Amino acid sequence: MTRLHNEPSAFADELVDGFVAAHRHRVRRVPGGVVRADGAEPGTVAVVTGGGSGHYPAFAGLVGPGLADGAATGNVFASPSARQVHDVARAAERGGGILLTYGNYTGDVLQFGLAEQRLRAEGFDCATVTVTDDISSAGPDERDRRRGVAGGLVVYKAAGAASAAGRPFADVVEVATRANDRTRSFGVAFGGCTLPGSAEPLFDVPAGRMALGMGIHGEPGFAEQPMPTADELAALLVEKVLAEAPADAGDRVTVLLNGLGTVKYEELFVVYRKVDELLAARGLQLIAPEVGELVTSFDMPGASLTLAWLDDDLAELWCAPADAPAYCRGRRSVTPAPVAPPAPAADTGDAVLPPAGEGSRTAAHEVAGLLDAARATIDTHAAELGRIDAVAGDGDHGIGMQRGATAAAEAARETAARGAGAGSTLAAAADAWADRAGGTSGALWGVLLRAIADELGDDERPGAARLAGGLAAGADRVVALGGARRGDKTMVDALLPCTEAFSAAVGSGSGLPTAWASAAAAARQAADATAQLTPRLGRARSHGDAGVGTPDAGAVSTALIAEALRDRESAR
Amino acid sequence: MTRLHNEPSAFADELVDGFVAAHRHRVRRVPGGVVRADGAEPGTVAVVTGGGSGHYPAFAGLVGPGLADGAATGNVFASPSARQVHDVARAAERGGGILLTYGNYTGDVLQFGLAEQRLRAEGFDCATVTVTDDISSAGPDERDRRRGVAGGLVVYKAAGAASAAGRPFADVVEVATRANDRTRSFGVAFGGCTLPGSAEPLFDVPAGRMALGMGIHGEPGFAEQPMPTADELAALLVEKVLAEAPADAGDRVTVLLNGLGTVKYEELFVVYRKVDELLAARGLQLIAPEVGELVTSFDMPGASLTLAWLDDDLAELWCAPADAPAYCRGRRSVTPAPVAPPAPAADTGDAVLPPAGEGSRTAAHEVAGLLDAARATIDTHAAELGRIDAVAGDGDHGIGMQRGATAAAEAARETAARGAGAGSTLAAAADAWADRAGGTSGALWGVLLRAIADELGDDERPGAARLAGGLAAGADRVVALGGARRGDKTMVDALLPCTEAFSAAVGSGSGLPTAWASAAAAARQAADATAQLTPRLGRARSHGDAGVGTPDAGAVSTALIAEALRDRESAR
Repeated sequence: MTRLHNEPSAFADELVDGFVAAHRHRVRRVPGGVVRADGAEPGTVAVVTGGGSGHYPAFAGLVGPGLADGAATGNVFASPSARQVHDVARAAERGGGILLTYGNYTGDVLQFGLAEQRLRAEGFDCATVTVTDDISSAGPDERDRRRGVAGGLVVYKAAGAASAAGRPFADVVEVATRANDRTRSFGVAFGGCTLPGSAEPLFDVPAGRMALGMGIHGEPGFAEQPMPTADELAALLVEKVLAEAPADAGDRVTVLLNGLGTVKYEELFVVYRKVDELLAARGLQLIAPEVGELVTSFDMPGASLTLAWLDDDLAELWCAPADAPAYCRGRRSVTPAPVAPPAPAADTGDAVLPPAGEGSRTAAHEVAGLLDAARATIDTHAAELGRIDAVAGDGDHGIGMQRGATAAAEAARETAARGAGAGSTLAAAADAWADRAGGTSGALWGVLLRAIADELGDDERPGAARLAGGLAAGADRVVALGGARRGDKTMVDALLPCTEAFSAAVGSGSGLPTAWASAAAAARQAADATAQLTPRLGRARSHGDAGVGTPDAGAVSTALIAEALRDRESAR
Repeated sequence: MTRLHNEPSAFADELVDGFVAAHRHRVRRVPGGVVRADGAEPGTVAVVTGGGSGHYPAFAGLVGPGLADGAATGNVFASPSARQVHDVARAAERGGGILLTYGNYTGDVLQFGLAEQRLRAEGFDCATVTVTDDISSAGPDERDRRRGVAGGLVVYKAAGAASAAGRPFADVVEVATRANDRTRSFGVAFGGCTLPGSAEPLFDVPAGRMALGMGIHGEPGFAEQPMPTADELAALLVEKVLAEAPADAGDRVTVLLNGLGTVKYEELFVVYRKVDELLAARGLQLIAPEVGELVTSFDMPGASLTLAWLDDDLAELWCAPADAPAYCRGRRSVTPAPVAPPAPAADTGDAVLPPAGEGSRTAAHEVAGLLDAARATIDTHAAELGRIDAVAGDGDHGIGMQRGATAAAEAARETAARGAGAGSTLAAAADAWADRAGGTSGALWGVLLRAIADELGDDERPGAARLAGGLAAGADRVVALGGARRGDKTMVDALLPCTEAFSAAVGSGSGLPTAWASAAAAARQAADATAQLTPRLGRARSHGDAGVGTPDAGAVSTALIAEALRDRESAR
């Protein structure tokens, strides 16, 4: 919801004040709205847009060289007045005529229309191009009745670039008209938006549902369906928009995947991944796409896809430099050439294996088996570990351990199968764990397994003593790398008792099953005891503070793995 | 909440795929993350950052000329692995050494630290500068334990600009260190974030409350308080950060007001308005501030303020050009000079009044009284009108009518007090209504009152016949401008019966009280009847579709005003 405001009735004025204060080096406040702060070339066309507030970066965020010259800023979701439009146009005008271009909404059409009449009466060349890209708002037979949404950026950008190129008034008007004629958008929403000061959303969509064709002021959609996956949404959007391709479409498009408010960049990128794939599969060349927030509806969760079929002229204009508060295109950052395919990930290949003794090669398969047992118990408890970690920190411990243990078990199986010794097999598993898991636990489990691997070596079948030595060395490295001490509420609290119990058992002549049983018991007891601790490690702040009552997730996962190894050994 | 994903475990990989697909002309995918697609100058320093996913634009969005050369992209909220960091650094390295700079979190420090060891072992100049700007995460006496948040942008930008300027390795490391030493941030949150695939937020903040110092992975804050106004939040953030100003602060700062996820741009601008005012009042020079999303925490509602005290060198570096997917600074868009004060709004002054007859000047005060009666009834019913309009459209009708009627009543009172005639008084009111209200209703009420004003004139006291003629002419203009017909479910459905009844009553010799009574009754009946209509006007789509059961808000407000005028006339 929209939470931050003072007097709600002052919201629209105050946001423009703040916008101008933040961008004084880019825009200048004038009665009715904002204009470019820099001096545009005399005699060129003034491109003036505007509309209600609540759609940032539309409209004030798009004022700058190569884009709009001015924007009239209305109240929340309400068109600016004719006087505002007139005054902004007069402030932006510089002898080359005035193009008024904005979304096709009743109030805007009325107010910009009155302003156009007045500007013409004052002797200015003035023309209007309303943006009508929203295919969901009217049928193909009445395109002039469609609403304007994110596609407006294509129209304003083309007109602004044409003006910057010094093209004459009629030419700039034609460019804007052509850009609008070749642009189509379709949007979906998963919920409503809350106007400043309202306790309730202006409208809503049932939980788990998606409204198709809902407008940016909550104009009702034409249908509703269950929430799709990201790929399903991409397919739906692409299908809807491609079905409306203009007659002389051609095969070059730019793509705008627009977030309507609270759909985040990460989600948009996941959707775009599929959009890109589907459009490429249709043989379309994608020119400098945009993924982000281009026109919004306050905090409305939703997204829209815009395709603009670019001819040579529009491709040049789309890729031309621009520098507005919310939209900047560097001179060198794009060309109208089709994008290059992504660089393939480098293939690291299989490392050459050192020679290994018969006994060590046999032990390698046992190592793989033990790691698979560790993977299995982590898989079983991943969700639980995530919940524990969410109390204490960022909730990623379950996922991280799962990624690491899975990668380690696979690497060990493959490496053992290639005839590696126990040490090389465990070393490969250690690297795989550290590489795939990331995070703190990934680094610590990586060095722990590495230390054990170094101790095991590849020459012969390692005995319990070697394993004990490896565990002790590994625990030392974990302490050295992580900087945690006993009682800091980390995995160290479980790891040290575990390895000490293992060494003690082995030292007193016990076999592996007994040693693992003793180690697992010590680890479990210590892990449970971490529930009484609070983190003392400075950097533990960065993973929150579980407070008393919750055990440390790293200690719990350490105990779980020790128990899994115990069970496997005792079962042999 | 985070809604759009496929397999949650694949989210982090898929978002990087989509990010690279959207920005192929800017970034190149390499094992472990992304690097600049363009060739950086050989022999210059490679600035490498990275961290967990879920913080976009951090970190991949900041890769580009003048900023970072590469970013290692970890799993959701999990640091990248040492191998990822190593591989990205190797791909970005170009003979000038490698600076690793990232937020100070346990996992990142471990993994980047291991990568640094490996890179040094491979013979590269490699140094680390961890970002520690979050003043809420540790005391001033242990700044090296603080977390890194939005201030990272200042550090990466300074280092990237220094590298682009060809400065040597040790110099770039010193710049990054100095930038971090002079940067402070403080954040607040109003709720938690939801990880992809989770049904529950990772953490939460009670409704109507604000957590102070909460971290970007949900690290607990140190205090909680009731939700403040925008200005109160600005004051709190400014006070907290200024209290931590470095010793040799100086009076030049750049300001980053950062949205953490679902706080929208409009809200940030309202807050920034006050931040700017408070910092200027302290005599600080603000250099190229940034207001937007710089480091996020998925959909966490919250914001942070960062101040970086810039010396001459850092000011130059902060304002240098940059061109990354999520951060672009044009060559001409900023200079390190202090920002200029905003241009004052042009004073339109008082129009010269035409001479007016005695009777018309008297009537002018009656006109002002009638408009005040209209204002009063709209004030009383504004919320109700908003609710009706929210069913049908964008919910702004109440606010719009209120702004318009209030401005009109004030303008009429002032103009009448200046001795204007009835026509000029009503004309001033008409312009004020249209200018302040905006939207559809503002335009229509503006032309309606203008038409009546033209009819009334300034010469003599206008009689009922003139008023009837003005109302009829006004209704005609509303129909002409709005394009609506009877039955389209607009204010026209109430306005036409109202004006016709008024004319009929006057035509049959009735006085004003009777005429207004008849007009008000007709308007009310017609307004109620609109509940049975559905919009037929094409552009009505742009204001939604009330469906049967809800009256048209514009028709209802028309009836309310007619009734208010009736009551006032009958009371005379």
